[in-house]
Amino acid sequence: MSDFKTVLLAIDLSEEAVQVANKAHSLAKNSGASLHVIHVIEPLSFAYGGDIPMDFSGIQDEIQKQAKSQLSTFSAKYDISADCQHIVIGRPETEIHAVAEELNADLVVVGSHGRHGLALLLGSTANGVLHGAGCDVLAVRVEDN
Amino acid sequence: MSDFKTVLLAIDLSEEAVQVANKAHSLAKNSGASLHVIHVIEPLSFAYGGDIPMDFSGIQDEIQKQAKSQLSTFSAKYDISADCQHIVIGRPETEIHAVAEELNADLVVVGSHGRHGLALLLGSTANGVLHGAGCDVLAVRVEDN
Repeated sequence: MSDFKTVLLAIDLSEEAVQVANKAHSLAKNSGASLHVIHVIEPLSFAYGGDIPMDFSGIQDEIQKQAKSQLSTFSAKYDISADCQHIVIGRPETEIHAVAEELNADLVVVGSHGRHGLALLLGSTANGVLHGAGCDVLAVRVEDN
Repeated sequence: MSDFKTVLLAIDLSEEAVQVANKAHSLAKNSGASLHVIHVIEPLSFAYGGDIPMDFSGIQDEIQKQAKSQLSTFSAKYDISADCQHIVIGRPETEIHAVAEELNADLVVVGSHGRHGLALLLGSTANGVLHGAGCDVLAVRVEDN
């Protein structure tokens, strides 16, 4: 059987996420699969390199609270219930792989900008998710805004 | 509308191609999409670096003939008609992108080994196809034989 049973949609809560979510929703519906959604928040200490000791805990909590609220609003449009919404803090590729494994997902859907040049060298999230994924990965081509 | 209209399945004619083709066939069927298949033959001169002037044309013709026959047998299992079978000589990523564009495909399906290490540095075909693709790319995780 080639249909999917559990689809994990990874989104960044940008405007482009809708294009990716539409595809994931349609695929899950066609396959009769359950649809989960994950949003990964990168810790501020990652973004700032972690070499300056600062206390980001208050800001981090606020970011997490807002992300949760946005993910909830987003998920409602696709009938994704609260227990299928995952907010995780960490590196996107690592956390997406971990949750995919936990859910025994057979497909991860992620957005891809298809950019050349620097992004190719640095590796996009789609690229990172592709490598080391234990399941299929659909990279949805999104138009840059 | 999020369903696919034209799906391009890229295969290497290995035993693993069946796993990739099953997914592509199922997806195309579910979406009511037309299914095309492409197999790219890398010219022998690429494989040998091209620095020694040798005449490979006879061998190349034979490879092409055998590939065409194998692709035809393979395609029959998935009801892919002759005009939807594409044999191209060149670099896989480049040719897959070119044919996808020509067909106005909205999804390319390709196998992925999900290997780490060297393959990550050198870039797998799935990775190459992902970058620069003008449409969605589904990387189907295949088990190494």
